Amino acid sequence: MYGNQNYGGYGGYAPGAAPGMGPTGVSPDVQQWFNTVDKDRSGQINWEELQGALINGQGKNFSESACKLMIGMFDRDKTGTIDVNEFQQLFTYINQWLAVFKNYDRDQSGHIEESELAQALQQMGFKFSPEFIKFLIAKSDLQHHKQISVDQFIVLCVQIQRFTEAFRVRDKELKGVITIAFEDFLSVAINCST
Amino acid sequence: MYGNQNYGGYGGYAPGAAPGMGPTGVSPDVQQWFNTVDKDRSGQINWEELQGALINGQGKNFSESACKLMIGMFDRDKTGTIDVNEFQQLFTYINQWLAVFKNYDRDQSGHIEESELAQALQQMGFKFSPEFIKFLIAKSDLQHHKQISVDQFIVLCVQIQRFTEAFRVRDKELKGVITIAFEDFLSVAINCST
Ligand SMILES: [Ca+2]
Ligand SMILES: [Ca+2]
Repeated sequence: MYGNQNYGGYGGYAPGAAPGMGPTGVSPDVQQWFNTVDKDRSGQINWEELQGALINGQGKNFSESACKLMIGMFDRDKTGTIDVNEFQQLFTYINQWLAVFKNYDRDQSGHIEESELAQALQQMGFKFSPEFIKFLIAKSDLQHHKQISVDQFIVLCVQIQRFTEAFRVRDKELKGVITIAFEDFLSVAINCST
Repeated sequence: MYGNQNYGGYGGYAPGAAPGMGPTGVSPDVQQWFNTVDKDRSGQINWEELQGALINGQGKNFSESACKLMIGMFDRDKTGTIDVNEFQQLFTYINQWLAVFKNYDRDQSGHIEESELAQALQQMGFKFSPEFIKFLIAKSDLQHHKQISVDQFIVLCVQIQRFTEAFRVRDKELKGVITIAFEDFLSVAINCST
């Protein structure tokens, strides 16, 4: 009935959660980019510094939510900032998303339009109605309801991943239906939303 | 077992959803503020223009999520922008929130700290554990986990209101537990998150 059909596999299609966190050497390129992004030279980057460094295909900075989301994923000690090693992992992660985005942006417009999003989510294992796809785009593209940028795409996919995962761990018998109490519902909701 | 106890009443404690939308005269003060905020003189304000006009107690602009949230509440025709009549309603709404925030900011620090948030949510009818209160603050105050600003407070409360309402309409027998299918869960999650 569902499984990967309705649920989302993401296996191989989209970057998963933050990868394993072993100490690694930092490449000179990454170190140099880090130094540029770290405006106040604190040795740590916060979401605002990251935002200053990331531009999407519309020539706009990545959204606040996208930057907070990505810092949060690699910020192991929950200080709201990342060091150069975490930054290197983030760098890889963003590049993975850029590749995914590029792959789904069939007409190379620099945006994901409705049919492209439908195809992307389908390939990630989801079966959503056309209305739901429209709704997702309108949530991102508030003014024109037409297309989503790469930072919005990342936020949307990560949100869907997280809520799907939260659902899945509660759906032990794979019924596609869960029973959930108010406090649990609320913490999932607040925790997974970006 | 719960009802208003565990669930949140909000009756009289926090501004509800967008109020009734009758055509009203716009006061000269509001018209003047609108003209200042409407940088490109389009006769419509988008979230970026709103953000440029709203400063919180930390001397920072309101967050992107707060501004998108508030525009979205008064943007009847879903164009991502509001006109001067909608702006007047937003103006009232923000002032209501400022009064609520001021009321809960007992020590007048300009922020809501942990004990103040606990009290605020309790007075709104919620019974959350101290750990959940800490978690809510850490979600807002990413770097210091200590305090939340007025724009973060608005986002948090509206999010809790929306998720509570979404839960309540599904909990017809007031059991404090709902059964929910995957697609419904996901649309609630995406719809209510800011
Ligand atoms: Ca495209
Ligand atoms: Ca205070």
